[in-house]
Amino acid sequence: MFKYKKQHQVSNSFILGIDADDTLWENEALFYEIQDRFFELMSHWSEPSETNGALLENEKTSIPVYGYGVTSFVRSMVLTAIEISKGEIETKDITKIFSWGDDLINAPIDLLPGVEEALKDLHDSYSLLLITKGDVLHQRAKVEKSGLSDFFWNIEVVGEKDTDIYKMLLDRYGINPEKFVMIGNSIISDVLPVLSIGAKAIHVPHHTTWELEIPDSKELENVDFPVVENLGGVKEILLGWNK
Amino acid sequence: MFKYKKQHQVSNSFILGIDADDTLWENEALFYEIQDRFFELMSHWSEPSETNGALLENEKTSIPVYGYGVTSFVRSMVLTAIEISKGEIETKDITKIFSWGDDLINAPIDLLPGVEEALKDLHDSYSLLLITKGDVLHQRAKVEKSGLSDFFWNIEVVGEKDTDIYKMLLDRYGINPEKFVMIGNSIISDVLPVLSIGAKAIHVPHHTTWELEIPDSKELENVDFPVVENLGGVKEILLGWNK
Repeated sequence: MFKYKKQHQVSNSFILGIDADDTLWENEALFYEIQDRFFELMSHWSEPSETNGALLENEKTSIPVYGYGVTSFVRSMVLTAIEISKGEIETKDITKIFSWGDDLINAPIDLLPGVEEALKDLHDSYSLLLITKGDVLHQRAKVEKSGLSDFFWNIEVVGEKDTDIYKMLLDRYGINPEKFVMIGNSIISDVLPVLSIGAKAIHVPHHTTWELEIPDSKELENVDFPVVENLGGVKEILLGWNK
Repeated sequence: MFKYKKQHQVSNSFILGIDADDTLWENEALFYEIQDRFFELMSHWSEPSETNGALLENEKTSIPVYGYGVTSFVRSMVLTAIEISKGEIETKDITKIFSWGDDLINAPIDLLPGVEEALKDLHDSYSLLLITKGDVLHQRAKVEKSGLSDFFWNIEVVGEKDTDIYKMLLDRYGINPEKFVMIGNSIISDVLPVLSIGAKAIHVPHHTTWELEIPDSKELENVDFPVVENLGGVKEILLGWNK
């Protein structure tokens, strides 16, 4: 009666956790595009760098409560706009900012090079668990739109990627940390918390890293993890570990 | 290696899915309180019934994309305010509407009568899986704040509660639909989709039902499910089914 899905059951090797945004497809680039529109809109009152600073402050307050998704980002932009303009911003511009949220939601999925081939290959030998943070509806919609959903044994949308969440997920599926490998572009979200629970991680850097995802150099002391240029490089690392 | 948590493994009886908002604690009442503030704020431009109609329209558009959480609700209020006031609403009032979102997030958890005792009792004989829709961070925070989290074998925050989601969850945990019982206050979210996949449901009505959670009378033809006054009445139904 209590069986895992076949795909997971047959695996006697690593279970791979795979991040989505900026590991499988472009994401930050879309946010930067909207940020540029926002800087332009606010240029009447402040310079882009100032606007960016104020926006980051609002995001830091918003994220722990409202998360990493589009709704939280839009909320931060509207509050920043009202602050910076000292309340002068017109309501039509606030409506416009909300519509940018819809643009983010409706943006096509732009897969990173080689992702589909790499997943196809990994899927043949390992159980793949997609682990992504953000708004649950939007993240699931992106996986569907990406055409990649069939490669994944399961999809987990979480609010934050920290030690507690990874512990909960491994516990949920009864995965031994020694047999779990997380793969993703963020050292803060995909690597450090995973290493701290005794599991493995492979870093696949993206060409941009959002300011809030850059680790302190102190956090990088005493940790060691492989870095590969793209998802296609993961298999070789795994084979090396399996020897 | 692939073990379920003990609590789940030992269960040879029903697995109970349990809804949270308005099944375990008050939720709609908080939203109504904020809505009243909103109707008051908008009374300069429109009557409460008109404001409510416009808000519901915005919610119907917002929910499929942004979900059932606070962020989506706040978005709908701000857009409704701009529409109804023909753009005249002041930005300080928009900031105020955003702060109401924080009030919702920070509201204390008001457990419904007898919930703790009922869960304690059910937890002794069944595996309990909390299934709730909304913003993932907020829903998890509420479970923690409620003091009830230890009664649950697992907590699932989903974007929507429809047939596909219930199928996915039962599949994820390898639960036979005949052994699954969903318990909650919404016929649309907790009962009908569950019955449609061959599982069981017990309806625990709340004293209020949000307009978007009221089923068509047509949907209630040819379905039959037990209704209990509160969570304390669930055990008797389960024992009857187990005979």
